[in-house]
Amino acid sequence: MTVTSLRRKTWPIMDADLEALAIGAAILGTGGGGNPYLGKLRAQELLKRGQEIRILPFEELRDDDVIVSVGGIGAPVVGIEKIEKGDECYLALKAVEAFSKTRVTALIPAEIGGSNSIEPLLAASHANLPVVDGDGMGRAFPEVQMSTFFIYGLRPYPAALADEKGNQVVLGHVQDMHALERFARTIAVDMGATAGFALPPMSGLDIRRTAVPHTVTQALGLGRAVLEARAKRQNPIERILEVTAGRLLFEGKIVDVNRQVVKGFARGVARLHGINSFSGSELTVDIQNENLIARRDGQVIAVVPDLISMIDIDTAEPTTTETIRYGFRVAVIGMPAHPLLKTPEALEVIGPKAFGYPDVNHQPL
Amino acid sequence: MTVTSLRRKTWPIMDADLEALAIGAAILGTGGGGNPYLGKLRAQELLKRGQEIRILPFEELRDDDVIVSVGGIGAPVVGIEKIEKGDECYLALKAVEAFSKTRVTALIPAEIGGSNSIEPLLAASHANLPVVDGDGMGRAFPEVQMSTFFIYGLRPYPAALADEKGNQVVLGHVQDMHALERFARTIAVDMGATAGFALPPMSGLDIRRTAVPHTVTQALGLGRAVLEARAKRQNPIERILEVTAGRLLFEGKIVDVNRQVVKGFARGVARLHGINSFSGSELTVDIQNENLIARRDGQVIAVVPDLISMIDIDTAEPTTTETIRYGFRVAVIGMPAHPLLKTPEALEVIGPKAFGYPDVNHQPL
Repeated sequence: MTVTSLRRKTWPIMDADLEALAIGAAILGTGGGGNPYLGKLRAQELLKRGQEIRILPFEELRDDDVIVSVGGIGAPVVGIEKIEKGDECYLALKAVEAFSKTRVTALIPAEIGGSNSIEPLLAASHANLPVVDGDGMGRAFPEVQMSTFFIYGLRPYPAALADEKGNQVVLGHVQDMHALERFARTIAVDMGATAGFALPPMSGLDIRRTAVPHTVTQALGLGRAVLEARAKRQNPIERILEVTAGRLLFEGKIVDVNRQVVKGFARGVARLHGINSFSGSELTVDIQNENLIARRDGQVIAVVPDLISMIDIDTAEPTTTETIRYGFRVAVIGMPAHPLLKTPEALEVIGPKAFGYPDVNHQPL
Repeated sequence: MTVTSLRRKTWPIMDADLEALAIGAAILGTGGGGNPYLGKLRAQELLKRGQEIRILPFEELRDDDVIVSVGGIGAPVVGIEKIEKGDECYLALKAVEAFSKTRVTALIPAEIGGSNSIEPLLAASHANLPVVDGDGMGRAFPEVQMSTFFIYGLRPYPAALADEKGNQVVLGHVQDMHALERFARTIAVDMGATAGFALPPMSGLDIRRTAVPHTVTQALGLGRAVLEARAKRQNPIERILEVTAGRLLFEGKIVDVNRQVVKGFARGVARLHGINSFSGSELTVDIQNENLIARRDGQVIAVVPDLISMIDIDTAEPTTTETIRYGFRVAVIGMPAHPLLKTPEALEVIGPKAFGYPDVNHQPL
């Protein structure tokens, strides 16, 4: 444990928390961000070996903290088969530290959705640093400029990528957050379509202003609610809607998934035929790593940045866009995005127009 | 002038030298390495403004010198239209210095052939450092692992690229020289297909062991011979053959150039119909940025790493693979490569097999 974390009220992630965190993060991943399963196993292994994973409450941030956001970058569909070595994010963090000549005091997830909820815990444990209870997306998004850190003006360099072969690439200076994304994406593709990614050092003051707060706690709470519902044989979908202030958009069977990996992204459209009270209706969900737009019988009913997640009705497991396929029966839920994601400047970067839908307006859930 | 260069016998590049250097470098560029014309204009401008460009004799190298090799990377055919800002190599050098926490004492050309003979002079003048009289190729080559520095085992990191928008990318750790090339190439493509490139810091001892010596002097001498022949209305081709111990391979008219930019490379084949004493014969030259293999009437007569250059018969100007076209009348000359390029370990990396010609053996000129 670092001196920094000793002096502050951090709290530990226990083995039982990891299952809940993985479920909550998968739901907040809105189909993207990668499956947290492998990361969860790895984190459990760390805890078994006696290492610690500690969370730093948002309120405990100090102005002069030096915080780096880490996560995996790449096509989740590749991440399933190309298994990480486990220290990719840590190596990326070390490269940023070396280049910027700073000493990092805490990490923060780049995105709470999917596997990137767990990756920072692994890197933090390696680095003996706590993880801030917040993130830069409040969900999952496909591109790095879609982080609230950059939407709200933080400097997009130096950042770094690392792979399982020990390659480390530092983006020492980039002209803007779009260049950061462009370089990082092609480097990640060169690294085999998945890599560890560390963003530029930010101050505690920066984080308080720009990060989506309390999202580790939120993911944990969401996952615990699902586990509890399962244990008590309650309906987990209802519990999810309660905890997230969400809305049931659809229940249906997946009849078609058109999915391709394009420049390191999973893109496509899923089509569902309604069941139960939605029988006779059709739902389509546009995907760019994450579920972006839901249309019921041609009518837009939920739009990014609001969260659209599919939960398997039979197993009560959240599904990811790279694993869904014909025959899955899912509940599709919509959850309102955090206010930081819905300001005019945020919608310019993460609203439907930014994803190539000029005719779709954001209608808040 | 730096303290380092003050204490040593460096010699200055004068305005009149630049024209000679550009001609000599273009001949040694074997059709590749980019056209030195723009770099020459830029260097002339620097001298006019009172800045100095100084050459450090190979014999003046000290064991503990810290030397970085710089040059442009990308498709020369793009370099003609996308004009450099001029400080790309300097910015790449600064990024390597920052990451490696070293203080560089001299630069050395990555390749003497083409525009990369001049680029290090510009960066050195910006950085107030001398340029070592040598290089890492003794000619031009399309890929970075084809440098004698890496062929003879120097560490391929940290290296850096920079572009005209100020983007700086550091390859902090790469698994081997092939990974260095792979990452650098895609990053250069991302930077708009041309970029400044700085290789890892090397010691004076390293350079003495691995660099091709005296090639700045060689290029200067070659260019001076051509200029002198032109002034005296002598045959410049004959002077080139004298100075380089070369051989006239062909004289002909270009009847076809098949050329494409593939992944940042100019690739293709040039076909020539013989004129003068070669009338009735045909020559083909295989190109991958540089002229690689010359075949007369189907018979291989010169093979990489030996140098194959085309000199315009009408203007006595060396031609580059991106500017040759139908109708040019050229003399094709073959020049023996430096012994460092012809060892078994070198031929593995820069022999015909490395360029995808499994059936062609290197037959030294």
